[in-house]
Amino acid sequence: MSKTVDLNADVGESFGAWKMGNDAALMPFLTSANIACGFHAGDPRTIARTVALAVKHGVAIGAHPGLPDLVGFGRRNMAITEEEAYQLVLYQSGAMRAFAHAAGSRLHHVKAHGALYNMAASDPQLSRGIVRAVQALGDQVAIVVLSGSETERVAREAGLTVSCEVFADRRYQDNGLLVPRTDPRALITDEQESIDQVIAMVTQGSCISVSGRTISVRADTICLHGDQDGALVFAQALRAALARQSIAPRAFP
Amino acid sequence: MSKTVDLNADVGESFGAWKMGNDAALMPFLTSANIACGFHAGDPRTIARTVALAVKHGVAIGAHPGLPDLVGFGRRNMAITEEEAYQLVLYQSGAMRAFAHAAGSRLHHVKAHGALYNMAASDPQLSRGIVRAVQALGDQVAIVVLSGSETERVAREAGLTVSCEVFADRRYQDNGLLVPRTDPRALITDEQESIDQVIAMVTQGSCISVSGRTISVRADTICLHGDQDGALVFAQALRAALARQSIAPRAFP
Amino acid sequence: MSKTVDLNADVGESFGAWKMGNDAALMPFLTSANIACGFHAGDPRTIARTVALAVKHGVAIGAHPGLPDLVGFGRRNMAITEEEAYQLVLYQSGAMRAFAHAAGSRLHHVKAHGALYNMAASDPQLSRGIVRAVQALGDQVAIVVLSGSETERVAREAGLTVSCEVFADRRYQDNGLLVPRTDPRALITDEQESIDQVIAMVTQGSCISVSGRTISVRADTICLHGDQDGALVFAQALRAALARQSIAPRAFP
Amino acid sequence: MSKTVDLNADVGESFGAWKMGNDAALMPFLTSANIACGFHAGDPRTIARTVALAVKHGVAIGAHPGLPDLVGFGRRNMAITEEEAYQLVLYQSGAMRAFAHAAGSRLHHVKAHGALYNMAASDPQLSRGIVRAVQALGDQVAIVVLSGSETERVAREAGLTVSCEVFADRRYQDNGLLVPRTDPRALITDEQESIDQVIAMVTQGSCISVSGRTISVRADTICLHGDQDGALVFAQALRAALARQSIAPRAFP
Repeated sequence: MSKTVDLNADVGESFGAWKMGNDAALMPFLTSANIACGFHAGDPRTIARTVALAVKHGVAIGAHPGLPDLVGFGRRNMAITEEEAYQLVLYQSGAMRAFAHAAGSRLHHVKAHGALYNMAASDPQLSRGIVRAVQALGDQVAIVVLSGSETERVAREAGLTVSCEVFADRRYQDNGLLVPRTDPRALITDEQESIDQVIAMVTQGSCISVSGRTISVRADTICLHGDQDGALVFAQALRAALARQSIAPRAFP
Repeated sequence: MSKTVDLNADVGESFGAWKMGNDAALMPFLTSANIACGFHAGDPRTIARTVALAVKHGVAIGAHPGLPDLVGFGRRNMAITEEEAYQLVLYQSGAMRAFAHAAGSRLHHVKAHGALYNMAASDPQLSRGIVRAVQALGDQVAIVVLSGSETERVAREAGLTVSCEVFADRRYQDNGLLVPRTDPRALITDEQESIDQVIAMVTQGSCISVSGRTISVRADTICLHGDQDGALVFAQALRAALARQSIAPRAFP
Repeated sequence: MSKTVDLNADVGESFGAWKMGNDAALMPFLTSANIACGFHAGDPRTIARTVALAVKHGVAIGAHPGLPDLVGFGRRNMAITEEEAYQLVLYQSGAMRAFAHAAGSRLHHVKAHGALYNMAASDPQLSRGIVRAVQALGDQVAIVVLSGSETERVAREAGLTVSCEVFADRRYQDNGLLVPRTDPRALITDEQESIDQVIAMVTQGSCISVSGRTISVRADTICLHGDQDGALVFAQALRAALARQSIAPRAFP
Repeated sequence: MSKTVDLNADVGESFGAWKMGNDAALMPFLTSANIACGFHAGDPRTIARTVALAVKHGVAIGAHPGLPDLVGFGRRNMAITEEEAYQLVLYQSGAMRAFAHAAGSRLHHVKAHGALYNMAASDPQLSRGIVRAVQALGDQVAIVVLSGSETERVAREAGLTVSCEVFADRRYQDNGLLVPRTDPRALITDEQESIDQVIAMVTQGSCISVSGRTISVRADTICLHGDQDGALVFAQALRAALARQSIAPRAFP
């Protein structure tokens, strides 16, 4: 049996006249794309163009709904209710699905953005709001969740198709969650260490925590970054390393 | 053969903490509802509630996409391109469809709002943008157009299901278009005259223009207003008059 | 020496085509007005009209800046920094001041709105952001703060003119802060009890806490509500009660 | 008598996480800056940073108010009334002035942005709305207008301090207005031709129209572009050419 792994990135984050990221260069390295839906980034024209780019490269189309906070790029925590989370995700994902269908494709998954993703990771109520929205979408739309998060638990209970996300460049705590960015050890800056972590996660379902313990991590999809220097170089190196391990990049599931 | 006519109204026009209209009282009189999609009015919570209300009363759910102008309520002309019209309508209608599906219903039609509707009525390019968006939605979603407008012409050429809208309280020019609001004769204020005009439109496919000529008008759907004093009284009187003519209220088509 | 007290209310909370409150009826009962600035409510036209109404009735003009959250009416907590609070308040208050000057008046005070006011009440950093913005405005612009809050403390340290706000219809804890709305005892619903509390606050600088203790409360300004049934009746009754105690309504300071 | 000319550019056009232009590099070449105010671009943080940059380089601070159209960058015509123009400009300029004052500077001028500037250039009513707003600001705030436009005429009638703007890289019609961008001759792409046109405008008050006639043009301020390749190189060349003619760059008036 051959192993596969999904390679995702957040794209379509331009807004009106403002450009962000280099989607055209990054897209060929991806197997799935999380496309901003207009609340924290993106606008109808940007969505149309990004969906076209994904279709061109055979990349699975995901909705990347965020909080209604353009100025803050959806990164500022907001006190929203489960119901508001449900409605925000349903609205944005529904809009994205129309563009996917119009381009002859389909909506493959939903991944919450920024503060919504992070707040939900430890909040069962927000997770429920997001999960209920994905359920309401039907059509076997999958949900991308932080591996080991409350969102994963709630999504599995609901019977959704769940894709667990891991990070190549982040270190993990003993409990399987990410070392917070406020901790100086949060980021892996060495390319080889990042790649080794990914290979271990994908082939063995584990990684070494920041305290040196072997912990279980489920790696269905790996998050690549598009907005940093060296992002494309890293994506290339990672794909080469996966190939050496006979791990095929493929959208999950 | 029994006659039928659709009775529509613009609803879901509240926004956040601000209320507009009396949707709960108006909905029982309708057979189809044009629900604001968030660009000129409406927000995810308002959409969810309005869709639920429509489902409760068996009213067909329509998207009512508008220009991105909350402060101006989508009533100020904006110089948008065909492509922007396409993207605006696709985005908003896709979002609305997700709520319709989540409520166990379907998206029945799309009717452009305010300045978008009015600009497109005499602009083939904008009409094409709107029509292409409805085509992209597929699923036999119908389009509601001003009877006799460019939008009607473009929509028929494209093979869409077209529902022609007429107004009970507006007078018509010899060319079949509405007398502009700037003309003092634009509005019919007498209830009986309004009802007589509707009955003639539905039963004979014609009405008397402001200059006294008999002109052809196609009346698939009649637009009721919800935000004016006496709106409910008029809706009740109109339904009674239709009943006396054995015209059944029914969503078109 | 005759006593005076300021009577304030949040006004100008309409937005575009949406109306809220009954400012024209409430304004004659006020001595100062907190006018929404466009981030949580209000828009340039609404501001112009509300400022004109305040000037007509000789009511002092205040800026009522809120979080950038129209859909949530500025009532949802957001994780903003001190710097963002400073910039939000400066921006909105500067805009309001231009309208006050254009109407031949001046900007009298600033009172933060909703979640911004409430978060700052117990957060010295947010309070500092707001206070620094009012300092930057200069021109002896006063700040309205919750009596006993962190915002009061920070504002006094900064040497601002501080107006302490109390509520006629809210009960207080032993520490001088409001009983949270989640507590069933939070609201005073009896009109006479509300009036008695206000009279005690103004004349004795104290009130009876929810546990029965006499606590110090500084009452420079009393917050009236404009958006509830009976608001005008209560405002009238309160003004009559104040008159019987020879307490003159007057903008503070 | 030594000649002077103002060199202005539109800056502060970033928005939230999105960057636009290279203000830090351009600012040293300017004598006055038109700073976006938040409706078409800019946000409170961007305004604060841009104002600080202008103060650091001794550049006069201008408000650059635009239409409420972030997605369209204020470049799409909108049907607004004179009253709406007045209110939009007053609101945005008031906000900008607060930041200028907070930075120890003052609001030097107002220049309308994009579609608002262009629509007003041939529309006396919109021009009146803008002019009335600048009058209401008082404090000797100047207005920057297109040389020869309706806005210039209305502003002079109102007694405002008027700064006439010319473009180094645009050709002019016989009537003194710009050749529309739809005309292939609209843009001057040769650097020396641009510089020669500016020198003639400043020293002789005239330039050669596209049909070869010498026409009068008043050049109080020259608009530089910051968002194009070669912008800084051109700014440098222009300043050198002005220096050779003993024309000193200085904010007008």
